Amino acid sequence: MFRNNYDGDTVTFSPTGRLFQVEYALEAIKQGSVTVGLRSKKYAVLVALKRNADELSSYQKKIIRCDEHLGLSLAGLAPDARVLSNYLRQQCNYSRMVFNRDLSVEKAGHMLSDKAQKNTQSYGGRPYGVGLLIIGYDRSGPHLLEFQPSGNTLELYGSAIGARSQGAKTYLERTLEKYLEIEDPEELIKLGVEALRQSLKDETLSNSNLSIAIVGENLPFTQYDGDSVAPYL
Amino acid sequence: MFRNNYDGDTVTFSPTGRLFQVEYALEAIKQGSVTVGLRSKKYAVLVALKRNADELSSYQKKIIRCDEHLGLSLAGLAPDARVLSNYLRQQCNYSRMVFNRDLSVEKAGHMLSDKAQKNTQSYGGRPYGVGLLIIGYDRSGPHLLEFQPSGNTLELYGSAIGARSQGAKTYLERTLEKYLEIEDPEELIKLGVEALRQSLKDETLSNSNLSIAIVGENLPFTQYDGDSVAPYL
Amino acid sequence: MFRNNYDGDTVTFSPTGRLFQVEYALEAIKQGSVTVGLRSKKYAVLVALKRNADELSSYQKKIIRCDEHLGLSLAGLAPDARVLSNYLRQQCNYSRMVFNRDLSVEKAGHMLSDKAQKNTQSYGGRPYGVGLLIIGYDRSGPHLLEFQPSGNTLELYGSAIGARSQGAKTYLERTLEKYLEIEDPEELIKLGVEALRQSLKDETLSNSNLSIAIVGENLPFTQYDGDSVAPYL
Amino acid sequence: MFRNNYDGDTVTFSPTGRLFQVEYALEAIKQGSVTVGLRSKKYAVLVALKRNADELSSYQKKIIRCDEHLGLSLAGLAPDARVLSNYLRQQCNYSRMVFNRDLSVEKAGHMLSDKAQKNTQSYGGRPYGVGLLIIGYDRSGPHLLEFQPSGNTLELYGSAIGARSQGAKTYLERTLEKYLEIEDPEELIKLGVEALRQSLKDETLSNSNLSIAIVGENLPFTQYDGDSVAPYL
Amino acid sequence: MFRNNYDGDTVTFSPTGRLFQVEYALEAIKQGSVTVGLRSKKYAVLVALKRNADELSSYQKKIIRCDEHLGLSLAGLAPDARVLSNYLRQQCNYSRMVFNRDLSVEKAGHMLSDKAQKNTQSYGGRPYGVGLLIIGYDRSGPHLLEFQPSGNTLELYGSAIGARSQGAKTYLERTLEKYLEIEDPEELIKLGVEALRQSLKDETLSNSNLSIAIVGENLPFTQYDGDSVAPYL
Amino acid sequence: MFRNNYDGDTVTFSPTGRLFQVEYALEAIKQGSVTVGLRSKKYAVLVALKRNADELSSYQKKIIRCDEHLGLSLAGLAPDARVLSNYLRQQCNYSRMVFNRDLSVEKAGHMLSDKAQKNTQSYGGRPYGVGLLIIGYDRSGPHLLEFQPSGNTLELYGSAIGARSQGAKTYLERTLEKYLEIEDPEELIKLGVEALRQSLKDETLSNSNLSIAIVGENLPFTQYDGDSVAPYL
Amino acid sequence: MFRNNYDGDTVTFSPTGRLFQVEYALEAIKQGSVTVGLRSKKYAVLVALKRNADELSSYQKKIIRCDEHLGLSLAGLAPDARVLSNYLRQQCNYSRMVFNRDLSVEKAGHMLSDKAQKNTQSYGGRPYGVGLLIIGYDRSGPHLLEFQPSGNTLELYGSAIGARSQGAKTYLERTLEKYLEIEDPEELIKLGVEALRQSLKDETLSNSNLSIAIVGENLPFTQYDGDSVAPYL
Repeated sequence: MFRNNYDGDTVTFSPTGRLFQVEYALEAIKQGSVTVGLRSKKYAVLVALKRNADELSSYQKKIIRCDEHLGLSLAGLAPDARVLSNYLRQQCNYSRMVFNRDLSVEKAGHMLSDKAQKNTQSYGGRPYGVGLLIIGYDRSGPHLLEFQPSGNTLELYGSAIGARSQGAKTYLERTLEKYLEIEDPEELIKLGVEALRQSLKDETLSNSNLSIAIVGENLPFTQYDGDSVAPYL
Repeated sequence: MFRNNYDGDTVTFSPTGRLFQVEYALEAIKQGSVTVGLRSKKYAVLVALKRNADELSSYQKKIIRCDEHLGLSLAGLAPDARVLSNYLRQQCNYSRMVFNRDLSVEKAGHMLSDKAQKNTQSYGGRPYGVGLLIIGYDRSGPHLLEFQPSGNTLELYGSAIGARSQGAKTYLERTLEKYLEIEDPEELIKLGVEALRQSLKDETLSNSNLSIAIVGENLPFTQYDGDSVAPYL
Repeated sequence: MFRNNYDGDTVTFSPTGRLFQVEYALEAIKQGSVTVGLRSKKYAVLVALKRNADELSSYQKKIIRCDEHLGLSLAGLAPDARVLSNYLRQQCNYSRMVFNRDLSVEKAGHMLSDKAQKNTQSYGGRPYGVGLLIIGYDRSGPHLLEFQPSGNTLELYGSAIGARSQGAKTYLERTLEKYLEIEDPEELIKLGVEALRQSLKDETLSNSNLSIAIVGENLPFTQYDGDSVAPYL
Repeated sequence: MFRNNYDGDTVTFSPTGRLFQVEYALEAIKQGSVTVGLRSKKYAVLVALKRNADELSSYQKKIIRCDEHLGLSLAGLAPDARVLSNYLRQQCNYSRMVFNRDLSVEKAGHMLSDKAQKNTQSYGGRPYGVGLLIIGYDRSGPHLLEFQPSGNTLELYGSAIGARSQGAKTYLERTLEKYLEIEDPEELIKLGVEALRQSLKDETLSNSNLSIAIVGENLPFTQYDGDSVAPYL
Repeated sequence: MFRNNYDGDTVTFSPTGRLFQVEYALEAIKQGSVTVGLRSKKYAVLVALKRNADELSSYQKKIIRCDEHLGLSLAGLAPDARVLSNYLRQQCNYSRMVFNRDLSVEKAGHMLSDKAQKNTQSYGGRPYGVGLLIIGYDRSGPHLLEFQPSGNTLELYGSAIGARSQGAKTYLERTLEKYLEIEDPEELIKLGVEALRQSLKDETLSNSNLSIAIVGENLPFTQYDGDSVAPYL
Repeated sequence: MFRNNYDGDTVTFSPTGRLFQVEYALEAIKQGSVTVGLRSKKYAVLVALKRNADELSSYQKKIIRCDEHLGLSLAGLAPDARVLSNYLRQQCNYSRMVFNRDLSVEKAGHMLSDKAQKNTQSYGGRPYGVGLLIIGYDRSGPHLLEFQPSGNTLELYGSAIGARSQGAKTYLERTLEKYLEIEDPEELIKLGVEALRQSLKDETLSNSNLSIAIVGENLPFTQYDGDSVAPYL
Repeated sequence: MFRNNYDGDTVTFSPTGRLFQVEYALEAIKQGSVTVGLRSKKYAVLVALKRNADELSSYQKKIIRCDEHLGLSLAGLAPDARVLSNYLRQQCNYSRMVFNRDLSVEKAGHMLSDKAQKNTQSYGGRPYGVGLLIIGYDRSGPHLLEFQPSGNTLELYGSAIGARSQGAKTYLERTLEKYLEIEDPEELIKLGVEALRQSLKDETLSNSNLSIAIVGENLPFTQYDGDSVAPYL
């Protein structure tokens, strides 16, 4: 492997102003199994492909609930995602206890951004090696955010991260106009599952490898795993 | 990539007295989409080209309000800009709460300078990888500042930073005499938008990728995005 | 030995997003003697091959009891396992003293994960060089977890780690349907011992090199060593 | 660029007893625009050439007032000069508040020296990349000091630092006998401006790029910029 | 000397999961003079070959008493052994003062393990470069432990560490069955001395270079040096 | 420049037991202008050649008074000498305030030694790059000390450090018997000046480049500069 | 100089278990002038060759008194010896003040050992570059210790360290039987001086370069320098 001279740590700019370690962390996301997020005007949905290391293991958790109105799916290093989701869960609790209100989804994104940015500007650590899709519902409606190791957190209408995610993204772009207007949550989930299918290679979606979550108007964060995903296959 | 021997960290001078890491941070600014700032005797204006990562994402925020009399646009690493604008927002609040007055624009610039300089003189961090255009209005009138990763903050009549910003700069230089005297804020914005156009390549300005802000005499910091920018296209 | 350029420490990503030091730590596990874990609906079992350095030494401990409802077996660096099991034992005590209840097995896994993740994201330490199989019984029934140096802790139906563990794994996969339904703890242990046999090379199981532990419904964590393993040979 | 083996940090002596990083910091001074200082028996004067990055910017500040009796001009990294002048300003305030007297110019120089020396003897920072000319008036009369990154602060009759400063120096050496005796402050300034001219290349002095300061007997630190420098052109 | 790329510090795994610095520390043990430990059902014995640097020096201490029921012999870096034996002595005192009982031998081994493991997982130190044989007698009878720089502490029936220790080990293996049953402490010591002889090269055991210690039932830790070893030669 | 492998920092011994960074610091002394010290039975004298950077500067201070009974001259890095003389001045004050007596010259030397030794045994700093000649008078009479960057402080009858100091040294050696007995302070100074002359190359001693200090019986530390040195030329 | 790969710092073992930096520190001792120690049944004696840098300096101190019953001579880096002897002096004082008794010589040795061992096991410092011969008299009679940078402190009947010390050592070995029985302190000193002579090359012992110390029964630590050594020449 030929050594690029400017990728030894996160605090060194290349002559073209790039931070290579941050870019390499993005590659860790591409090693993870794909997850898709999308939102209509009333709901936000996550669908994710669970991977099992081998036949003996349960499938690895891909969707994590943080609060009644907020949750996320991940692609990349699962232990890093745990750190970030634990942090978010604490912030949600704090907001409810201290201010007696839900943490706004935008604020949640800012908080993750700030936490991640620090790791890109101080020596001795590394960027988080995980991407997150965050869905939530607050006063301003449903939201979908994409968190990146650089500390960027984007608001999106739809996104897909992880291995071969481009297939799902293309599907979402093509159907954007349509799903933005979907009123029926079931239908929105189905479209998400269809998007996920565009990123599969040898896998077939089944009760055991599909994970779904939805949040929205009058609908707290709800997760479907195992038999409960059957209706969407 | 051939390694320059003196660009490994921010605390090493080259034999010609240069700090290469600080110079590389300037390159990060050139990777960002262009933003333009200008001021007349009564107003200061920011216009910026928003970029969206792909069709599914909202456009990334390019202009950030810090206070009623102060805001900024950015080019470069957005998470770094968040850190700096949060800092500025806190200082604005502090000034209002403790001294019961607006933070002067010059002081704001000094504060950013001091914060950025530290990162160029201590091991273990990196310079901020972002340029900022700051507009504000205080007792001494409207101001436009340009913040650089080196810790330099310049007072200017007009400026443009980011990809292909030279086109906008040239336009501003050519029209400097004229716009300094513009009394109508609408007209000043239009001239700014025209400057921005000189730095475009394949993009066309539209409701969705143009962002505008103005501040001035009897005019608190006001931001235009989406449909509200239509009159200036 | 040709030096890979990105494996000098745990805080550097390779251009493909890998953390090599974490992967090398997995190799330390493969140097350890094999241990097998499996669970039915009522019980969880560990069987392990003890190794002795030479004829004069007792066999090295492979199974460690942490609490009445929880224990683990290890493969890899034994001193690292001591650190982790001591930590788990303290957490079990703390849970009982402060909350007056057993630490849930899932929580125990989370705690190990968090502890191990830190070592993969901060400079100056190293990942733990040991893999653990953790069995426990709590309100939600019997559990088997596999802890990895990356900070991943997986819930499993069966697993084997250490030298030539693939043989045991294959056996468990083949018999999964069967042993999940086993009601008799003795029978479950015997199946585990049979699985372990698939991973042996020159060794023969005997009173002195076989170590067994079981936990389950109405059955506190019980360990069999020496003569007490005879019935299962 | 061929790497000298002893210039990697400020805490390594070369085999000939040199600290190369300190010497390289001197080079940063030569990148700055020229500034000239001189003193007669009653007054001390600074004149400086302001540079503007481009036509849109105001000229960069070259002279900084620290107190009623003390100020400085700089050549090199402006953000570093800000740090040092802020420090001096604080010390001046402190002296007045605590001891009820002006900080002596000699003491001011000592304080800068001590601050700068530390950066040449501890790992993890860098020398200041700026030279300063400090003028002041205290009980012992007018003073001119030159501060260097090494921590040396020299008392002088005249000095020039920055790009092509040798021309000005030679002029001052030639006229030293004369200007030491000048009684009229206006005349002393004019001689300083003439000295500055010897260091110009393509620039012409004008209202906008000349900066002047004077302090002396019954004359608090006074700065001339813009139109007020016209009489001296 | 060809540099192995993964042996620069104790916190770097090789691609095969090895910690070379820990392995090199084992080599330091082989530089030390040989010491032998063995235990029967009632007693534990240490015998050691003392080395003198030259004729003028006393022989270097090879056996260190820690408490009435516990002591150790060493091979490798003597100053490191001092640190560890001082630590053990303190823990013995602490146990007696606070809990009013002897520190159990097993606990003593755990404590050394934990102390040594830390040095293999944190940057900036090094593993201990010494091996220890620890004998002690507590409620569970006589014990012999072997401490290794890795943090492993093994319970053994007999062991030998240091230069050419393999000869003694082989002897102990051959006579294991016999000496386990020895009831007479004198006889056990003699067998130990005989074992030590198998590891000698040019040396002859004498009053001045043989060191013996024994502990057991109704027999506090007793050390024989000088003339008192004569009966065992 | 070919890199010696053992001169990268002050905490690494070469295979021959040398600390190269400490030796390189001695070279910095040789870059400084020469200074000479000598003592008779009643007085101690310093003479030094002041250097001026150019014609505009005052000559750089070569002799520093620390207390009424103690002062020093320097060769090498002047800012380092400032740090050390400030330290000595504080210790003199402390001694007078707390113990109500002059700091003994020997004690002063010990204190400098201890301060300098630390810099040769801890990573992250560098040795002081300056040599000092210290003269003082206390109960035990007049003293002359030579301080070296290694932390050695020698008591001497005469010494010279700095550029071409060998000439002065040879002169002092030749006249040692004579000047030890000199009773007249004026005469002793003259002999010192003559010694200094032996180390000059192109310089001629004059009112402006000669600096003299003396201390002794009934003679507090007295410094001669400028016109007051004329009698000794 | 060819770089050995394992001698960069004190915390890295070579593949053969050696700590090269500690071994290099021993070389620093060999650069020092020779010193000899010996003891009979009643007295312990140090003799040392003082070196003077040049003819103008006093001879450098080679013997340091720590307490009424304890002192030492040194070979190697004198500033390091100062640190260690200061430490010993403090411990002697502490023992007398707190426990009202002399610090035992053995304890003194242990304390030096512990202090020195730390420097061989933590990054960022270096081993002490000095060897010490320590003599003392306590309840158990006269003692002679040799301190080494590794942290080893040996009890000896006689020893010599420094340049060409082998000659003295051989003499002491040959006369060991004899001087152990010497009752007259004068005679013991003379034998020590004779031993020292065996290590001289071009030097001749004289009043000015010989230093002697003795301690023993009813004889507090006494030092002879200058004219008082004449009787032993």
